[in-house]
Amino acid sequence: MGGKIAEKILRVDMENLEIKTEEVPKEYEELGGRSLTSKIVSEEVPPNAHPLGPNNKLVIAPGIVTGTGSPNSGRLSAGGKSPLTGGIKESNAGTPFARTIARKGIKAIIVEGKPEKGKYYLLKLGKGEEELIEADKWVGKGLYDAYEELHEEFEEDIEIAGAGIAAELNASNAGISYTDPEGRSTRYSGRGGLGAVMASRGLKFIVAETPDENKKEIKDKETFDKGRKKLANALMEHDITKKDGALNSYGTSVLVNIINESGALPQRNFSDGSDDRSAEVSGERKAELIEERGGVKPHKCSPSCIIQCSEIWTKEGGEDPVGVLEYESVWALGPNCGIYDLDTIGELNRACNDLGLDTIEAGNTIAVAMEGGLLDFGDGEKALELMDEVYEKTPLGRILANGAEFTGEAFGVNRIPTIKGQSMPAYDPRSIKGIGVTYATSPMGADHTAGYAIAPEILGVGGEEDPMDNKKADLSRSLQQATAMIDSAGYCLFIAFATMDIDEGMEGMIETVNGVLGTDYSIDEVMEMGMDILKMEREFNEKAGFSKEDDRMPEFMEKEELPPHNVVFDVSDEELDRVFEKE
Amino acid sequence: MGGKIAEKILRVDMENLEIKTEEVPKEYEELGGRSLTSKIVSEEVPPNAHPLGPNNKLVIAPGIVTGTGSPNSGRLSAGGKSPLTGGIKESNAGTPFARTIARKGIKAIIVEGKPEKGKYYLLKLGKGEEELIEADKWVGKGLYDAYEELHEEFEEDIEIAGAGIAAELNASNAGISYTDPEGRSTRYSGRGGLGAVMASRGLKFIVAETPDENKKEIKDKETFDKGRKKLANALMEHDITKKDGALNSYGTSVLVNIINESGALPQRNFSDGSDDRSAEVSGERKAELIEERGGVKPHKCSPSCIIQCSEIWTKEGGEDPVGVLEYESVWALGPNCGIYDLDTIGELNRACNDLGLDTIEAGNTIAVAMEGGLLDFGDGEKALELMDEVYEKTPLGRILANGAEFTGEAFGVNRIPTIKGQSMPAYDPRSIKGIGVTYATSPMGADHTAGYAIAPEILGVGGEEDPMDNKKADLSRSLQQATAMIDSAGYCLFIAFATMDIDEGMEGMIETVNGVLGTDYSIDEVMEMGMDILKMEREFNEKAGFSKEDDRMPEFMEKEELPPHNVVFDVSDEELDRVFEKE
Repeated sequence: MGGKIAEKILRVDMENLEIKTEEVPKEYEELGGRSLTSKIVSEEVPPNAHPLGPNNKLVIAPGIVTGTGSPNSGRLSAGGKSPLTGGIKESNAGTPFARTIARKGIKAIIVEGKPEKGKYYLLKLGKGEEELIEADKWVGKGLYDAYEELHEEFEEDIEIAGAGIAAELNASNAGISYTDPEGRSTRYSGRGGLGAVMASRGLKFIVAETPDENKKEIKDKETFDKGRKKLANALMEHDITKKDGALNSYGTSVLVNIINESGALPQRNFSDGSDDRSAEVSGERKAELIEERGGVKPHKCSPSCIIQCSEIWTKEGGEDPVGVLEYESVWALGPNCGIYDLDTIGELNRACNDLGLDTIEAGNTIAVAMEGGLLDFGDGEKALELMDEVYEKTPLGRILANGAEFTGEAFGVNRIPTIKGQSMPAYDPRSIKGIGVTYATSPMGADHTAGYAIAPEILGVGGEEDPMDNKKADLSRSLQQATAMIDSAGYCLFIAFATMDIDEGMEGMIETVNGVLGTDYSIDEVMEMGMDILKMEREFNEKAGFSKEDDRMPEFMEKEELPPHNVVFDVSDEELDRVFEKE
Repeated sequence: MGGKIAEKILRVDMENLEIKTEEVPKEYEELGGRSLTSKIVSEEVPPNAHPLGPNNKLVIAPGIVTGTGSPNSGRLSAGGKSPLTGGIKESNAGTPFARTIARKGIKAIIVEGKPEKGKYYLLKLGKGEEELIEADKWVGKGLYDAYEELHEEFEEDIEIAGAGIAAELNASNAGISYTDPEGRSTRYSGRGGLGAVMASRGLKFIVAETPDENKKEIKDKETFDKGRKKLANALMEHDITKKDGALNSYGTSVLVNIINESGALPQRNFSDGSDDRSAEVSGERKAELIEERGGVKPHKCSPSCIIQCSEIWTKEGGEDPVGVLEYESVWALGPNCGIYDLDTIGELNRACNDLGLDTIEAGNTIAVAMEGGLLDFGDGEKALELMDEVYEKTPLGRILANGAEFTGEAFGVNRIPTIKGQSMPAYDPRSIKGIGVTYATSPMGADHTAGYAIAPEILGVGGEEDPMDNKKADLSRSLQQATAMIDSAGYCLFIAFATMDIDEGMEGMIETVNGVLGTDYSIDEVMEMGMDILKMEREFNEKAGFSKEDDRMPEFMEKEELPPHNVVFDVSDEELDRVFEKE
């Protein structure tokens, strides 16, 4: 084993419109996904760089196992300094684009510099060559249409990464969109505004042609195959991930009823933890409607997936307007805005995908605008009109595209559910404390995927924890460590349901990574690597101006009781600081 | 001497609409102005409080000598947690309102709590009683008209503090306006958004009736009188402050030509340090026009002033549209926007005064909007139209009223001249390094008045320093210490020109303070008190999330050379940190 991995780094110099192919430095060989994007950002981006200025960079890296046949391995990481948080950002997505670039032998794409102001380019990763092509003609166009046109324009089988209209505004809630298996703009590195980092470098699209030959190297095929089978078996065995299991049957929205019942599904800008009407937008109800209307379910978001928690939301009459409606999106654009109608939520989600907006941030933004009096809670029609403001690039559209905190400041709101500038996902931290510890302390800002404490706190996966127990530093820390490695491996986070409960699954996951890299890491070593990634990210943030006071809940969550349990966020500062100050 | 000072603290509870009179606690007796506002804010406002939320407070305190007959003593401090910087704020103003509340025996006004949403009140400080009166009828009204109406409505001689339309938006660039001697809205605690803190507590105006009897106590009249005379003599002797001296002849705008010649007068959003057209808006030119047009000059901003650097800007035809045009305002709304016409600047300044916007922040905001493509540099007509957006409370108006950093984010600009969120004043720190050290390290954000290094660097006052020398930590520190005490004493900062150069003046200033308090502090002790104030403010900021990385220049000033000297800001991080890390 050992020896040089036959992979490359693509460095795209947008100032001089040049593409360089670089060898993978030795110290990057065992990295991938998040460990690689965070490493490159830490080494190449000055922490005081303006996120939209010439010295920030966008880094895209498929995971370590991405491109292989391992299950649920179609992930990539996008990284850079975030215009939303002002800190380092890794934003993970599952998309066939990840597999395609991995199979082309691309370890990472680094986009740097800025072209002439207002000029946009498309980076074509062809079968033979790479080139930059003028892309001004797509400016102002929605991504659903743009991706259709790109599929027509390029004759080969392609996958796309794109920056939408929101990104053209350099807005802090502009994500990077990727194609799903049907070629639509539905897969996202949504969080943290990396679409604006991409667009501010003058890069509108990356179009990757599927290679004839898979260049992804597996150094120890035997170990890899052994691991792959163990992992697949575990996934097919666990109640949450198996065929006809919870995710496969109802998608991620299976959580709507569960979290609503636990009193932690935020309603109307985090002013209540449950509402009976939530059932109208539940996974069960959605599955029923999709079936009635003749939609597609289950569906996979990326080629290697065997969980298949995705689906295609279907309008009355059978038309497919959006793609998948995920739990977080349904919640953000639904109950959090007092909206309890899946068709309205579907339209709002479509607008987000089309504009290139992260749905979690967009839903929180609308809810904060509602709190600020711009529209009433529950007014779906007006909410949809707000999306038009972004299409039309009006001043109001610019406000909204910059996210919840920005919108709150514009409208004088003081209840803004953000940490490090990033909006909270669909779990109120007052009634599920562990996820709150993750929100507060993750270097990414409020992010459930950074250390998904919901698993033990609500789902009974990976042990059982009382959601009201306010000692959760150890739990959050170990989840954040494990997640950092899953994000680096290139696995979907949902494999963790199986690997936390089934030892063979965990072994299998580690064997696939060892197999690809030709290494022999133990689980303890892998967990240590997770901590190394987190420390590197936190060091960047510290140099960018973050202190422990940034690892805190917004004031109102410490003061205002959340019904129905009438609880505040009562995790002490000491407990929060303990996550990364372990003796 | 010694014994209890016969002064009181007014605590205005806006939630229950109650006014309490409290005795001055012993540890506050020797405090005033900034030392008192920063002390009360530090003790009563939680550092994590949302600036617009229920737990922030607005504190207004006249200086220690304010209300006496000492020259240039008509100052007050407003304090609170700033919605602009997110840190502690002291914003100082010269106004007859300061003298009036001091003479009423008011040591400080503390405004706390919030009434029913959208309700506004007027705090009447009558001759006998204090009361809260409904003030909704003034919502949406410009301050010039509102103050005229208030003068009609209240029969007594009154002074006013007010929150304008910008404050009704809860906008981060909303200042607190005070009356000038003619009763107009021209005196400002402009910086840091304290108007929004006032308005978010439901307080629209404070109307203070002039008392029949001066309750300001002077414990040691003999020492006080001795000091007062020494200080007055020094002021009348120094070239900058004397009658027919620089300030008295040309107002603060005397600096336009001087700073332009030194290559440090920022042009077009800090992209050049000089422009020949600056002469068109110089103090000399302004004085000429005011004379031609039959205006008032010199003029004093507050009753005890003997420098008289104010004037009343005059339109063609002799009409007075604005009040004074200060150097900082002329620069911000003029050369920094590529506007070189005093009449346009006058109209812009009037709009700021009328809306309740800080002119420095407003000018930077327009310049950043120009850089972002909303309008062209030099387009004064369009700039005036932007002010209408604030009057009309449109989304664009909300963006602009939130200041330069906010506007920059809305329009995707990465050259934003702010520190801790607050816009820089009229000296480019790349070509005058010492003022840059003050901008970077002051707990207030970019603020020239926090430690006016221009005096020795450009004016040869208080010694001579090479503006290009990048070792300025010691200079900035001692200026910041002295300033903290001047802001606490209640003196206009301009007395420092005389006290830095004339020892008797400095002695006199300290004697007036000792006289009022019945103390015997030495100059060294006074300087130590200055440091104590700064440390208290920095401690608040640290708890609010600031780190040493917040004591830095924006990235572009470290990278982009400023003509005509083609210099970057090259003060090292170590030198910046040395200001407050003195061994």
